Amino acid sequence: MASSINVLSQEQMKINPELQKERNKASFNVQELISILDGGPKRTKRRKELEQLLFTDPVFTNPDRHFMSKSELYEHGVEKSVRLFQLKRKYQWSEDDYTLAERLLRKEISLSLHHTMFIPALERLATDEQKAKWLPLANSCRILGAYAQTELGHGTNILALETTATFNQATDEFILRTPHITSMKWWPGGLGKSCTHAIVLAQLIIHGKNYGLHPFLVQIRSLEDHSSLRGITVGDIGPKLAINTVDNGFLKFHNHHIPRDHMLMRNAKVSRDGKFVSEGNSKANYATMILVRVNMTEWAANILSGSVTIAMRYSCIRRQSSLKQGVEEELVINYQSQQYKLFPALASAYALLFTSRELHQYYDRVYPQITKGNYRQLGELHSQSSALKAMCGELAVYHAEICRRACGGHGYLWSAGIGEAVAGCNTIITAEGENTVLYQQTARYLMKQVASVVSGQEVGGYTAYLNTDNIYTNPINTSQHCRDLNILAGIYQNMAASVIKKTAHKLHHDMSSGLEQHVAWNNNMINLVKAAQVHSHLSTVLAFITSLDNLISSQPIKSALTLLCQFYAIYGITNNSGDFIETSSISVYQLELLRAEEIKLLSEIRPDAVALVDAFDIHDETHGSVLGKYDGNVYHHLYQSALREPLNKTDVSITGNVTFCILV
Amino acid sequence: MASSINVLSQEQMKINPELQKERNKASFNVQELISILDGGPKRTKRRKELEQLLFTDPVFTNPDRHFMSKSELYEHGVEKSVRLFQLKRKYQWSEDDYTLAERLLRKEISLSLHHTMFIPALERLATDEQKAKWLPLANSCRILGAYAQTELGHGTNILALETTATFNQATDEFILRTPHITSMKWWPGGLGKSCTHAIVLAQLIIHGKNYGLHPFLVQIRSLEDHSSLRGITVGDIGPKLAINTVDNGFLKFHNHHIPRDHMLMRNAKVSRDGKFVSEGNSKANYATMILVRVNMTEWAANILSGSVTIAMRYSCIRRQSSLKQGVEEELVINYQSQQYKLFPALASAYALLFTSRELHQYYDRVYPQITKGNYRQLGELHSQSSALKAMCGELAVYHAEICRRACGGHGYLWSAGIGEAVAGCNTIITAEGENTVLYQQTARYLMKQVASVVSGQEVGGYTAYLNTDNIYTNPINTSQHCRDLNILAGIYQNMAASVIKKTAHKLHHDMSSGLEQHVAWNNNMINLVKAAQVHSHLSTVLAFITSLDNLISSQPIKSALTLLCQFYAIYGITNNSGDFIETSSISVYQLELLRAEEIKLLSEIRPDAVALVDAFDIHDETHGSVLGKYDGNVYHHLYQSALREPLNKTDVSITGNVTFCILV
Ligand SMILES: Cc1cc2nc3c(=O)[nH]c(=O)nc-3n(C[C@H](O)[C@H](O)[C@H](O)COP(=O)(O)OP(=O)(O)OC[C@H]3O[C@@H](n4cnc5c(N)ncnc54)[C@H](O)[C@@H]3O)c2cc1C
Ligand SMILES: Cc1cc2nc3c(=O)[nH]c(=O)nc-3n(C[C@H](O)[C@H](O)[C@H](O)COP(=O)(O)OP(=O)(O)OC[C@H]3O[C@@H](n4cnc5c(N)ncnc54)[C@H](O)[C@@H]3O)c2cc1C
Repeated sequence: MASSINVLSQEQMKINPELQKERNKASFNVQELISILDGGPKRTKRRKELEQLLFTDPVFTNPDRHFMSKSELYEHGVEKSVRLFQLKRKYQWSEDDYTLAERLLRKEISLSLHHTMFIPALERLATDEQKAKWLPLANSCRILGAYAQTELGHGTNILALETTATFNQATDEFILRTPHITSMKWWPGGLGKSCTHAIVLAQLIIHGKNYGLHPFLVQIRSLEDHSSLRGITVGDIGPKLAINTVDNGFLKFHNHHIPRDHMLMRNAKVSRDGKFVSEGNSKANYATMILVRVNMTEWAANILSGSVTIAMRYSCIRRQSSLKQGVEEELVINYQSQQYKLFPALASAYALLFTSRELHQYYDRVYPQITKGNYRQLGELHSQSSALKAMCGELAVYHAEICRRACGGHGYLWSAGIGEAVAGCNTIITAEGENTVLYQQTARYLMKQVASVVSGQEVGGYTAYLNTDNIYTNPINTSQHCRDLNILAGIYQNMAASVIKKTAHKLHHDMSSGLEQHVAWNNNMINLVKAAQVHSHLSTVLAFITSLDNLISSQPIKSALTLLCQFYAIYGITNNSGDFIETSSISVYQLELLRAEEIKLLSEIRPDAVALVDAFDIHDETHGSVLGKYDGNVYHHLYQSALREPLNKTDVSITGNVTFCILV
Repeated sequence: MASSINVLSQEQMKINPELQKERNKASFNVQELISILDGGPKRTKRRKELEQLLFTDPVFTNPDRHFMSKSELYEHGVEKSVRLFQLKRKYQWSEDDYTLAERLLRKEISLSLHHTMFIPALERLATDEQKAKWLPLANSCRILGAYAQTELGHGTNILALETTATFNQATDEFILRTPHITSMKWWPGGLGKSCTHAIVLAQLIIHGKNYGLHPFLVQIRSLEDHSSLRGITVGDIGPKLAINTVDNGFLKFHNHHIPRDHMLMRNAKVSRDGKFVSEGNSKANYATMILVRVNMTEWAANILSGSVTIAMRYSCIRRQSSLKQGVEEELVINYQSQQYKLFPALASAYALLFTSRELHQYYDRVYPQITKGNYRQLGELHSQSSALKAMCGELAVYHAEICRRACGGHGYLWSAGIGEAVAGCNTIITAEGENTVLYQQTARYLMKQVASVVSGQEVGGYTAYLNTDNIYTNPINTSQHCRDLNILAGIYQNMAASVIKKTAHKLHHDMSSGLEQHVAWNNNMINLVKAAQVHSHLSTVLAFITSLDNLISSQPIKSALTLLCQFYAIYGITNNSGDFIETSSISVYQLELLRAEEIKLLSEIRPDAVALVDAFDIHDETHGSVLGKYDGNVYHHLYQSALREPLNKTDVSITGNVTFCILV
């Protein structure tokens, strides 16, 4: 069995009896759910093998990470990256293995973007000839790459990037220039200190004419001694809220020359005599960015499941106050308000895991078609991945932060592990398309779908619910109705359809009254964003519901997760009740029924609280939290961690002199 | 004029023309509003004097603070504390001056709790004789103190603290013991490395009998060489999300002896022969904790006004995307969604400032009565300060985080200044009473008030709105009605009264049906917390409304702030619409009117956007943000800050060897 192959087995430690009691209450077999979530027992086994390999290696188990300065974090992150590359080669890991290993290390390595952005971009942007030359170098890390798109002055508006690559026919070269301070590359991960090469997005200028943005492979640093090349100024942009293992960088070009064949020419070519020929289809690049967003939903799900694991275990050993004088202090998980903090987080973690998995499968279905030149589903894939990247990021940060606060004072310690996770997860909200901007992309798609429906065309896929007309009366009248997932789904669909159609109607009305399209769009922007949000929220509810049937065969597990799914759906209604009442999707009376049911569900979920987080089976080294370890010996771990604090290396930190100097 | 006395005058720098254009649009005299917010022109003048004094001193203007390790932050913080004490003495600052100076330094000093907790506690807990001995030492910093209450195992439940102080009649001493690992003191600020003394809360044991919690003044470190005393283990608890200048500490006692007269005996005495006599009234101590909470509301307001200053200025120079192809890129502030991020934050910043000010005045009225033994208003003061500490903290963190995200990628940099502010502000939510716990205190008070009303007694003060019965129809039918602050206040009062009374009714009903009181309380906890929240939200709305009349004489300023107040009230309704509709405080139709009005208000507030943040007049050194400086030269400051990053001191950070080592 799983535990036998893991020498570091979490199960073998001395377990806090409070946690053991919780575990004994589980209504289902936790190992079975672990397997389901991993995607089968083989994958569980493989994960445990990797955990054993990584977490017996001192490079990956540094307990002093919390105390490192940014420079130390970077250096340590490089060391981890190097070891990871070595292991990959030594054990001939598959891509899946490597991705899993990165996840187990919470992506806390420095050179991850070489693997997750540079190589994929090279694969999609280079010609076959260029690939033959560069990919072997990249895959064996003889060159290290960054993907340099964003500039100081432009992130969202890619088309307005200012870096130029001017063709010089005389020397058969491109000359790269950074015309203004705002044109400096700024943000690319790995660019600051690590990379030897970067794919640089720049405006292509030939004989004075601008041919738009194109990618160029530019060497940044020497392969001999890693010094930066002449004509290039490069460095790190400074401390960030988190992910300080990665050297996000800036880059300036001072008339830097590169050979013509360093333009990545899969989609467009420049010939020796300066002729520009567009080839291939740029939409295929698009699909790469979509993949990154799909991956981000998984990251969000992982962060949230980690955070709720920590807070749930801690709440099941922390006793504080008594409800009644004179009796033993209560476990804080037994306070209703504490359950109302953690169970929504737990339910959301499952919702996000299932949503992310479904989105991944959808991507895997559509992407091969796109590479074959069939773009029919690209619009919807773009819409879904944008909205869900945004929504999953926001939900994860929101609930993980509640988990942090639910740990009281100790949750404010870095060693609690949640603060850093939340700060890291905040990246998802901003990077790879700022959320408000992405929601608008989805809104554009939704408006188009409504237009189709209005014009009498039926729409399919993720927006099929827009086909039905708005007149809807939900039948909720009893407690049982409140648990009916079909009814709950119907309520969400009705609400979302109403909000979206109302927005479309208003937009249409404003334009009919003479407003220019862009003015009307801006005047309705709040509602357009809202439309995309309710659509994405609905998508998560539906993903949870369908996953119950698709993934789970064990009846006890299905029962436990059904409670969680009901709770997720009801909580989403009671906490956004205005949206549902305003759209007549529920009545005030029905809302009361739902609230009563929500409270009943708290106590039904309660016995499985710990089992349901144990099922995420996150290794102690992965979540790196003194509060959330499998053994639950919280106070011991808190104290051990404090003893390592560098200030405690010496007894005296301020000398008598200081005190004396205040005095005189 | 103000600017003439400030050599570092922010106004004298070369201003980004985009910002200047915004400033030219102001509908009111900014200097006048600055004065009002400072509390009069004299106080503005004094603030500017202090800013000049502090921010021409290199100790207080360290541009490399962002790059410091925790140990360096602590050392630097000690240096700042010492300098501040010296300045206080040299210039004979008043208490107000000192508090203001701490605010200007964003409390980023190490020894602040000596001043804000240790000395006030000494004043309230020591006998006159003890004060005569200890206060001069404390005031001149010949001793440095911490307030040590919380333990590893107990924060919220103070009564269950485990540290014991056992009277030893033979030697006329107390013996301090830390019986379990959970009994270690844990969290007190300044305890880890700085303090020489601590006020330690411990269970008093005399001849085997426990007399409950009492305060003891315990020497922790030598006054000669600052080494920790025998019988004491003390240290720092490790890195936190923020405020790492402060050394929050742990403390263990191994049968540590202190003289009997080191028990602070203002409220209870132990005589030579071990007789325990209770004296004075412990409720007076209570008022100290209340004061700390009152101060926290001000801190919350300051953090939020700083964060919105940064995001607003940045949004008024950042251009990104165009609404229409081919035209100049838009200032991001002109996107409706951006206004809907920042104007609620702006309005909330003003709401919090006024709320905090009003709460302070209320405290100043009630506190003297309490010290005279009149406890009539203590209950309400406790209720208001608990609820508002909780609500102001939550609102500040919520809106400040939106401000951070509204800065796009650059908001994720530490140098943007908001991330650290948010992380620091998170303390408010947890420390000095965890928010959920505090809301319950307020809920208890509210339930009592409802009981009075139900029994036919009229209630007064902040809960007077509970007297009216619930049948209420608000008259909103036009756009003008939506702007009527009396109507808006009425809507809030009706909503709050309904929620609170419904909760009281349900609680009563559950107990009548036979549930024990503590079970009923727990079963209704979500609603009880909600009751306290709607009450506090209402309090902020009312504070904003009454401040308009009480504080502001200038008509242009009043007009500008009235728009903001209307917006604050309406936004609170549209974003919690369920609460208002469910309680029949508004109809769905009225909600639509309010939403339309809310959008109109955005464009009415827009011209004053920058003037309204300029009026907070936060010094560049105080908010310490490259994005929010008065001059608006964002890109320049971003780059300058990156150049200081330690990783950029050398060109090469990873050697060729590393790359090579991956290869082989
Ligand atoms: C941790 C991190 C890692 C990154 N890694 C990389 C990398 O490896 N490579 C790389 O090239 N880049 C990278 N980036 C950059 C990132 O992709 C951009 O920061 C991101 O796309 C946001 O763009 P921005 O900064 O221009 O935001 P802005 O567009 O400036 O956003 C500011 C505000 O304006 C609003 N706004 C802008 N346009 C509109 C509009 N049309 N309508 C309404 N509102 C609008 C936004 O909603 C936001 O509130 C990274 C960023 C971060 C934070
Ligand atoms: C930055 C910082 C500085 C501090 N400085 C000091 C200092 O100088 N001196 C000092 O003595 N202490 C200090 N503290 C400690 C602080 O006062 C406590 O952490 C705080 O009061 C919260 O208590 P707790 O940690 O026991 O939370 P817990 O009570 O353990 O909270 C954990 C969870 O249980 C819930 N819970 C607990 N009781 C109940 C209940 N009855 N009903 C419902 N839910 C409940 C909470 O809502 C929370 O979700 C500091 C803390 C921090 C974070």
